[in-house]
Amino acid sequence: MAGGGGSREGSGWAAGRWASRSSGRARRGCHEPGLGGPAGRGAGEARLEEAVNRWVLKFYFHEALRAFRGSRYGDFRQIRDIMQALIIRPLGKEHTLSRLLRVMQCLSRIEEGENLDCSFDMEAELTPLESAINVLEVIKTEFTLTEAVIESSRKLVKEAAVIICIKNKEFEFEKASKILKKHMSKDPTTQKLRNDLLNIIREKNLAHPVIQNFSYEAFQQKMLRFLESHLDDAKPYLLTMAKKALKSESAASSTGKEDKQPAPGPVEKPPREPTRQLRNPPTTIGMMTLKAAFKTLSGAQDSEAAFAKLDQKDLVLPTQKEKPDFLEHLTPSTTY
Amino acid sequence: MAGGGGSREGSGWAAGRWASRSSGRARRGCHEPGLGGPAGRGAGEARLEEAVNRWVLKFYFHEALRAFRGSRYGDFRQIRDIMQALIIRPLGKEHTLSRLLRVMQCLSRIEEGENLDCSFDMEAELTPLESAINVLEVIKTEFTLTEAVIESSRKLVKEAAVIICIKNKEFEFEKASKILKKHMSKDPTTQKLRNDLLNIIREKNLAHPVIQNFSYEAFQQKMLRFLESHLDDAKPYLLTMAKKALKSESAASSTGKEDKQPAPGPVEKPPREPTRQLRNPPTTIGMMTLKAAFKTLSGAQDSEAAFAKLDQKDLVLPTQKEKPDFLEHLTPSTTY
Repeated sequence: MAGGGGSREGSGWAAGRWASRSSGRARRGCHEPGLGGPAGRGAGEARLEEAVNRWVLKFYFHEALRAFRGSRYGDFRQIRDIMQALIIRPLGKEHTLSRLLRVMQCLSRIEEGENLDCSFDMEAELTPLESAINVLEVIKTEFTLTEAVIESSRKLVKEAAVIICIKNKEFEFEKASKILKKHMSKDPTTQKLRNDLLNIIREKNLAHPVIQNFSYEAFQQKMLRFLESHLDDAKPYLLTMAKKALKSESAASSTGKEDKQPAPGPVEKPPREPTRQLRNPPTTIGMMTLKAAFKTLSGAQDSEAAFAKLDQKDLVLPTQKEKPDFLEHLTPSTTY
Repeated sequence: MAGGGGSREGSGWAAGRWASRSSGRARRGCHEPGLGGPAGRGAGEARLEEAVNRWVLKFYFHEALRAFRGSRYGDFRQIRDIMQALIIRPLGKEHTLSRLLRVMQCLSRIEEGENLDCSFDMEAELTPLESAINVLEVIKTEFTLTEAVIESSRKLVKEAAVIICIKNKEFEFEKASKILKKHMSKDPTTQKLRNDLLNIIREKNLAHPVIQNFSYEAFQQKMLRFLESHLDDAKPYLLTMAKKALKSESAASSTGKEDKQPAPGPVEKPPREPTRQLRNPPTTIGMMTLKAAFKTLSGAQDSEAAFAKLDQKDLVLPTQKEKPDFLEHLTPSTTY
């Protein structure tokens, strides 16, 4: 699992970098107070950061769900990465975030489910959806869900975990039957499905309706609705504040006043937002925004050229593809 | 530069991952509206996210400066990583953030300055401090600073860029003289220093006072003060809100009410905070917080064990070293 190990460093490469730190840095490290905790500064300051960290985490979780709901999976992954960087910081009151984080763990695995090249459990070499099955079991315990409540959703994930291997462009029939035997043999609710899939694998029968009628998008949205149904529908504080801010901004039509602060007032409980969102067709407005941001953030010299290069490529997930260009601005690369 | 390329993927590995996406994912990608921009959802929703993104970015920038000021460089890098993930999202009103981002670019390079194994400009193979010199030139232009204002700070960075190579455990004398010739030859303000350093390199004289008296920590703090002096001292909105929230929380001594919202009221301009902070000795309180967070975030089965393993190691930058453990919870690794 060498490649895996490397990439685990990669996925947050700072980790590997600081571990193999130059002695100079290591020495400095020793002088560092405990990360983020009250050690390095007043406990009051630490508590303030913790409070904001929780607000921010709850806001981006809300945005992540919204992106997932709208099938904006590129957005979902970007927001997931923000949350990932955020949960390294001290949060305080972790119990108020545990449900949120479990649901995010489960959705992240489901969103990656089609990608058999990645794993959330390197040691166990699990596919993302096998890992999702495990997270679902944790959710069952922690959310104290009855067997009746979780049954059908767990069956959906097990089915998807097997079908994804069968539909994979490398036709991972062996992996499919391994997952099938591991997760469907003892489960009484999946016996019929188990036999169908066993035959499909034996006959390599990709034309079977179980395979033909399977929609990963539909599966993802079903799982989202299941997980959402076990969360409270409170609107995040920062979203409420932003609505106030934009309202008073447009009211004052203040072109000059940047990031106007919201007109103070009691924070009313907002109505539940629609559980589904219509998908708009792709437009280039997103690109305009990105271009502006890109030019602001990139080195003055080459920003136009760099963006032009970016612009020549097809526009699927432009920021994702070009992420390394952004990354040169704050985080370094290694020259090993 | 193969390793570099790989690690550039690494530094935000999602980028590489989605680029080499399975056709299935690529197909789904095509259906995705433009990332983050108004395309994928109502323009109103996008503007709300942009507003919050700006608030959040300004808050973590403030926290990053505070960490740097307090020599909590591990905290600084963690907060830098949050900002890095954040600037991929649409921000809107980029002009209100450009100064902030330039300063962050410069500080990130300075903070990495001792680490010659990493680079912010892979193509040009620049050391972090050579890169910082370039950012400083951009800052001079964009902040419209006079030669007199920037002169001494630029000299500090050039000096540090050379001395770091000399003091490096591999004694990079060649690299040192290369940087010296490139950045000190034409610069009239550095002629005396240039000659001193040329002799030091020729004689490999590490005992020379210019080397012996050089303190990277002092250099970093001088640069911070220079950069800070060109920023407005407005306290970030989220920090003000958090202070209100904690105040009303302790006032109501509400143990039950989590993340209480601040008592509404006009946001007063806060007094400038002290430009320097005393450093407290390391304590283990940070670890307690981290342990709680770790146990909340990690898989229920092995959290205790995983943390124990973590706990046995020396406690320099624990979260950094263990970041990959956290990363398994939201972001995947690759099994390539």
